[in-house]
Amino acid sequence: MTPPSTDINQQEILSNLSYLLREDKVDFVRNILADLHAADIADLVEQMPPEERDQIFSILDPEIAGEVLAEMEDPPREDVLEEMDSSKIAELVNEMDSDDATDVIDAVREFSADKAREVLGQVEDEVSEDIHELMHYAEDTAGGIMAKEYVAVNVNWFVEEAIKEVRDKSDEVEELYQVYVVDDFGRLVGFVPLRDLFLARPHMPIKQIMNTDVYAIDSDMDQEKVARIFEKYNLVSAPVVNKSGQLIGRITIDDILDVINEETDEDLARIAGIGEEEILEDSVLRIVQARLPWLLISFFGEIGSAMIMQSFDATLDQILASAFFIPLIMAMGGSIGQQASIIIVRGLGTGEIDPKDLGRRLSRESKAALLNGLVIGALVFAIVAFWLNDLAFGLVLSTSLIIVVMNASLFGSMIPFGLRKINVDPAIASGPFVATFNDVVGLLLYFSLLSVAFKYQLLA
Amino acid sequence: MTPPSTDINQQEILSNLSYLLREDKVDFVRNILADLHAADIADLVEQMPPEERDQIFSILDPEIAGEVLAEMEDPPREDVLEEMDSSKIAELVNEMDSDDATDVIDAVREFSADKAREVLGQVEDEVSEDIHELMHYAEDTAGGIMAKEYVAVNVNWFVEEAIKEVRDKSDEVEELYQVYVVDDFGRLVGFVPLRDLFLARPHMPIKQIMNTDVYAIDSDMDQEKVARIFEKYNLVSAPVVNKSGQLIGRITIDDILDVINEETDEDLARIAGIGEEEILEDSVLRIVQARLPWLLISFFGEIGSAMIMQSFDATLDQILASAFFIPLIMAMGGSIGQQASIIIVRGLGTGEIDPKDLGRRLSRESKAALLNGLVIGALVFAIVAFWLNDLAFGLVLSTSLIIVVMNASLFGSMIPFGLRKINVDPAIASGPFVATFNDVVGLLLYFSLLSVAFKYQLLA
Repeated sequence: MTPPSTDINQQEILSNLSYLLREDKVDFVRNILADLHAADIADLVEQMPPEERDQIFSILDPEIAGEVLAEMEDPPREDVLEEMDSSKIAELVNEMDSDDATDVIDAVREFSADKAREVLGQVEDEVSEDIHELMHYAEDTAGGIMAKEYVAVNVNWFVEEAIKEVRDKSDEVEELYQVYVVDDFGRLVGFVPLRDLFLARPHMPIKQIMNTDVYAIDSDMDQEKVARIFEKYNLVSAPVVNKSGQLIGRITIDDILDVINEETDEDLARIAGIGEEEILEDSVLRIVQARLPWLLISFFGEIGSAMIMQSFDATLDQILASAFFIPLIMAMGGSIGQQASIIIVRGLGTGEIDPKDLGRRLSRESKAALLNGLVIGALVFAIVAFWLNDLAFGLVLSTSLIIVVMNASLFGSMIPFGLRKINVDPAIASGPFVATFNDVVGLLLYFSLLSVAFKYQLLA
Repeated sequence: MTPPSTDINQQEILSNLSYLLREDKVDFVRNILADLHAADIADLVEQMPPEERDQIFSILDPEIAGEVLAEMEDPPREDVLEEMDSSKIAELVNEMDSDDATDVIDAVREFSADKAREVLGQVEDEVSEDIHELMHYAEDTAGGIMAKEYVAVNVNWFVEEAIKEVRDKSDEVEELYQVYVVDDFGRLVGFVPLRDLFLARPHMPIKQIMNTDVYAIDSDMDQEKVARIFEKYNLVSAPVVNKSGQLIGRITIDDILDVINEETDEDLARIAGIGEEEILEDSVLRIVQARLPWLLISFFGEIGSAMIMQSFDATLDQILASAFFIPLIMAMGGSIGQQASIIIVRGLGTGEIDPKDLGRRLSRESKAALLNGLVIGALVFAIVAFWLNDLAFGLVLSTSLIIVVMNASLFGSMIPFGLRKINVDPAIASGPFVATFNDVVGLLLYFSLLSVAFKYQLLA
């Protein structure tokens, strides 16, 4: 037994495949691909030049080719779909699970609604019905990630009829862990774990062995909430129901892993001010397009800082040393603001922090910021006293630092809660927008304090 | 059928339970708890005062209490374990899966090695053997997350013997999706999906129905690598083998979700400079302890910035406006550096970026930074020209900005690759350490350019 290697040498295989494709040695290529999992082939295809991709998809058996297409990531997949004829796409879509098939049609529609319609016109009727149904659901809801492949048995059946249904559906439903139980109106009433079904006596009624504590997911539930339910209750699959409680689909744990990864990508993109699908993006222009708006927010904010400082130019001119500590003020405010906001963004995301916890969190964060502020305030006072030999300036600076830090912690903790309340992604609070805001407010506080101290002749 | 609610009103249940516990109405409490999933009870217990926690654990049936303890998060769980006697802990550990049991013993050992030994002395022999074995593996490896509960059948058996084994183990092994096949020496040779096993004829040899393409995980594989394998190949469980290829454990997808969450917590903690287990941390002192070191790195770095600026005080004094743009220089360098680093940290984490891709990534990031730098450079030139009516200063400022931004992008892209090479978590590159470094280098570049321009009388 040779377990599939997890460290396949991509570069070596790619150059071998490239050579063999150029020499038209199709059988050799087929042999190499036969030993690989669809996910590994997808990784390879993502790295290939367009003409080789086309060749690979024409060499692969349609079932495997469909899996490869399902496993590919965007944007490389979009490029593949743009190059492929609609009849070839339809051939692969026929072989895919309904959720993956719908994703492919959605991806095609992104660049050409006509081509998407063409593909749908060419797939099998049953497949196109499923896709049409799944396309109705918003992408980020339970309906948007569920598939139509599942096994349902009637609550009035016996075990042996249910086992026959499992057998009949075994080609269509690949990963089966549970059989769902429905009433005569198709409403979900329970489930039977596969093992319990098989270990039960054939003449036993399903009613007697089913478990009625079933986690039914509403089709319009937000996908992140679905992910939280899977995580919390350690589920590997869950049935999806419509408003009338009728079983309409199934979500499996692999969909949930995708949701979790998407969510992390999204959070990190917000924090850094970048695009969400950037990792595999090859177009520098598209990268710039995603990042520039965030940079500009920060740019104009800091031009605001410059204007504030100009309005304090007399103070700045008199106490030139005040400029030396601008970076310190900004960095401390920025760091403490981000410490508070990231922990709250993450907690709100995982559900470990409840939107109602604002007060408790504010108090926790302010206390932590105050303690940290006192430590760095004392340090900077000591440093200024020794280095610049100016106790009064040291005092104003350390006071400013403590106020700036408290203020940043306040904004950093409150803004995620506020954004959540108005249904905006709280992760924005850890990004450039709030950081810039903190810079502007921090500098305004610092220079105001300085100029007041100067006015009352507290500073030399 | 009432599906377990996902929005149980915690505060209401908590105050009811609190009242009932005070009034000693144990039966009512038992009734409330009977309707809840262990994960929900764990959430409630996490919020309770210590004396109520103790009461709940004594009221719960040991099996459920064990599950609740397994579902609880640290640090609240550590507090519960500190309060609980070792005999009670042993009673619950007996009921837990071996991986959860080992986690509990590890958690106890964190605060008292003696108490951990006491607990181990009181658990059943079989349980303590499993725990002793599992404790040998490093926490962040496959061995550290696997459990000893699985079903293995001999390769020479027939289907009916394997089904009998499944039946015998059905109490012990809760979530069963696959049966593993081993040879006479206990070496893993294949697996049979549960459905295939039950749909096969009873007299068929296992050898004939088993699948030999099995993803065997080495016990010392890093847990993040294991997570990548589960994600890539859509696994719900995988067998773990020792150096001789013998089957020694099983990892299930719920363990993988924990690993993925841990990893995201870790990345976010590195980015923000906070502790990894902070969300549920109630002690402000422990929060300060986790955050202060990161703040101090940044603090001393920015004191360095202050010293650099002091050494340029003549320039600063002559061109006071140079101070106005310190925040802009810092913010742009910081943002572009983080844009580059976060995308690379994430890509290296998910495996979408290969450690060998440095060259390609550098070129992509530099091009994006150059384009963005040119845009903001042109903007700042225009603004300075109009606002301060100083073309020469505008030119020096925009040139500095472009150099600072290119430099930040270079560091932001290279450092994660470098850290990865020396086996340090690349996420540190998105945190305060590199941001501070970028500030210092950025200001040094800016003021050097200014003073050179001033020296050659390019500036008024």
